[in-house]
Amino acid sequence: MISWFEIPEDSDFSLANIPFGIFRTEGRPRAATRIGDSVIDLDVLHKAGLFSGINLPEEIFSQSVLNDFIALGKPTTNRTRERIQELFDASNGELRDNWATRVDAIRKADGTDMLMPVRVGDYTDFYSSREHATNVGTMFRDPNNALLPNWLHIPVGYHGRASSIVISGTPLHRPKGQTKADDAELPTFGPSRLLDFELEMAFIVGKSNDLGTSVSVEEAEDHIFGMVVFNDWSARDIQKWEYVPLGPFLAKNFGSSISPWIVTMEALEQFRSPSPKQEPAVLPYLEMKKDHNFDINLEAIIETESGAAKTVSNSNFKHMYWSMAQQLAHHTINGCNMNVGDMCASGTISGPTPDSYGSMLEITWRGSKPISMPDGTERKFIQDGDTVIMKAFCEKDGKRVGFGEVRTKVLPAV
Amino acid sequence: MISWFEIPEDSDFSLANIPFGIFRTEGRPRAATRIGDSVIDLDVLHKAGLFSGINLPEEIFSQSVLNDFIALGKPTTNRTRERIQELFDASNGELRDNWATRVDAIRKADGTDMLMPVRVGDYTDFYSSREHATNVGTMFRDPNNALLPNWLHIPVGYHGRASSIVISGTPLHRPKGQTKADDAELPTFGPSRLLDFELEMAFIVGKSNDLGTSVSVEEAEDHIFGMVVFNDWSARDIQKWEYVPLGPFLAKNFGSSISPWIVTMEALEQFRSPSPKQEPAVLPYLEMKKDHNFDINLEAIIETESGAAKTVSNSNFKHMYWSMAQQLAHHTINGCNMNVGDMCASGTISGPTPDSYGSMLEITWRGSKPISMPDGTERKFIQDGDTVIMKAFCEKDGKRVGFGEVRTKVLPAV
Repeated sequence: MISWFEIPEDSDFSLANIPFGIFRTEGRPRAATRIGDSVIDLDVLHKAGLFSGINLPEEIFSQSVLNDFIALGKPTTNRTRERIQELFDASNGELRDNWATRVDAIRKADGTDMLMPVRVGDYTDFYSSREHATNVGTMFRDPNNALLPNWLHIPVGYHGRASSIVISGTPLHRPKGQTKADDAELPTFGPSRLLDFELEMAFIVGKSNDLGTSVSVEEAEDHIFGMVVFNDWSARDIQKWEYVPLGPFLAKNFGSSISPWIVTMEALEQFRSPSPKQEPAVLPYLEMKKDHNFDINLEAIIETESGAAKTVSNSNFKHMYWSMAQQLAHHTINGCNMNVGDMCASGTISGPTPDSYGSMLEITWRGSKPISMPDGTERKFIQDGDTVIMKAFCEKDGKRVGFGEVRTKVLPAV
Repeated sequence: MISWFEIPEDSDFSLANIPFGIFRTEGRPRAATRIGDSVIDLDVLHKAGLFSGINLPEEIFSQSVLNDFIALGKPTTNRTRERIQELFDASNGELRDNWATRVDAIRKADGTDMLMPVRVGDYTDFYSSREHATNVGTMFRDPNNALLPNWLHIPVGYHGRASSIVISGTPLHRPKGQTKADDAELPTFGPSRLLDFELEMAFIVGKSNDLGTSVSVEEAEDHIFGMVVFNDWSARDIQKWEYVPLGPFLAKNFGSSISPWIVTMEALEQFRSPSPKQEPAVLPYLEMKKDHNFDINLEAIIETESGAAKTVSNSNFKHMYWSMAQQLAHHTINGCNMNVGDMCASGTISGPTPDSYGSMLEITWRGSKPISMPDGTERKFIQDGDTVIMKAFCEKDGKRVGFGEVRTKVLPAV
């Protein structure tokens, strides 16, 4: 697709992408898409009549979240996305030649204030990378039996905190909490000393199912609107002391960070990829009849307060043992109801080699192999003042569809 | 307090109570209180000018949930509650002598369609009864080390599913899922065979705190609007196979049931009670300077399809080792933000004796001591067609404040 609009060749936001997000202008939230280095105000396009063939409520793009838009359903949201592609196509003059609307609708992405794209009703975190689960099991349990008995049968997941999911750019304070040293008799209280990131992606539910009903693997992708990059911040020392027997709690719920643009499943379609072979065979309700994984390059970067930056992980979403379709089918097999806007994260996405591990826990192997930063300092875990940046993009046959980034600065404990 | 209105002497809904809920009338939701056997439409009282001294938005009682009302803050919600008490006081004629408003506002509770009182943003389940944790540890781990090392230091909790919390009267289907017998090599799929209730109570957050801030034990009760009875349905066989290492997931999120009336902390004030002695001493951020527990009688009843009913548990909320104030202080000590309407359940409330255990798992000791029902059948766990009813009330010096009940029928697996 060639556009009349300037789109840098290496942009995540090509005309093949057309993601959705929410930005703030003059104190008010608005729905937008992103093309190249520009944010496109969808409310302006809509009020100018440029979506006239599509059944969109008048104020659908002037809400503070995308939930109502997403709930209109894929026929409508896809039609909207395709219409935006049409409007920016080289052969189309409807917007190109309408200078008043262009000036109103198009603004520089740089400096634009992005907001949470959806109201997240419930948030679930999975644990679906075999390499990650194996690394964790090797470090904390038994290298010869690294995977727990259920892991190859169940896309293991647990509920997380929806209220503390924040948008890229929102700084987070290092959490305080209880920790206990192995050789100490009693726990102590203070700031976490083992603050870590987890390189994840998350999908956003696009179609609700009622309590008591299930979504099959085949139907699942029709229930997924799109994806974002997800940093599942983790305080390893708090987690270690609290997590038995009911799972991680305060080690996680002080904050999780997401990238601002929801890339649709339709934009990701051409990057579909096979999953790793699943053996032993999964139960029938988890069987896949086609490829449900996606080839998405992932990168995690640490940037120090002084600006020294280093890529510490290059991973890929295609390594995921359990697909999103399987996760959603499993999540609902007991009748659990999912609502539009609910978010499901993948779990740390680690690849097979150390340079593709998705957390500092694994990269530095519990701190035993510190990383050297360009400014001469070392990192075992994340320090106050560090900014963690995660990026994701797909590339194939010269086409690029990307997510931009999620960027979070860590502030000292309050 | 003596009323001009007829209130049965043993009613949970005395003039000392005045809880808040949402009911449906002519297809529309309305806020209400309950007095004796009647539901009082607060929208009618408000539109009749009977709350004129209080700063209440005009449509505050015609919304589908109480979140906005609760968010007005305790000075306003308490003033509203006290004004209702005043209107029903024997000496007050404002409502008593206004027949048109009385006819509009007062209706029989029996047959009234109650709805979820709040939109639950996030839901957390604690694990705060020492007797329950000890029973579970004795059964599944080591009777000599029944409590895990962190239990006496942390009010252990985990995130649950908010979307599947339903109001009393909503039937639930037996969940299906993966289970694995101890002697089987592979898991199988089918309806849960060990469906259980958990006798709990839950508090509703009444005041939000921002991400990065904490609520102290002293401030905590000012952040709690009130309480409901909570049935934390659990599929024991699904739970056993899935819960390591990240906690219960599909074993719980197929449904949780609550009683419809939120009883305010102010109504519970006179039933304040000491907590069990906490030894070893808790960390300073969890220290209590006064009594934060409450003397609330609890009962669980199983009613068979044929109508044969049996009380299977008589417990009390005062047995809780960790108080709600400690739970909320712990939940926010890492900066986790809580929003108005968020719900925190207690965990199963078991007392010291077998007749006060709060789950079938404990009552029948994993099914080894079945219960005889009045119709001659036996129960190890809950069967299809059974209705589980939970009741809660406080009584002291002839005053009674109660919660009514939460009642849930179990339907066969879909």
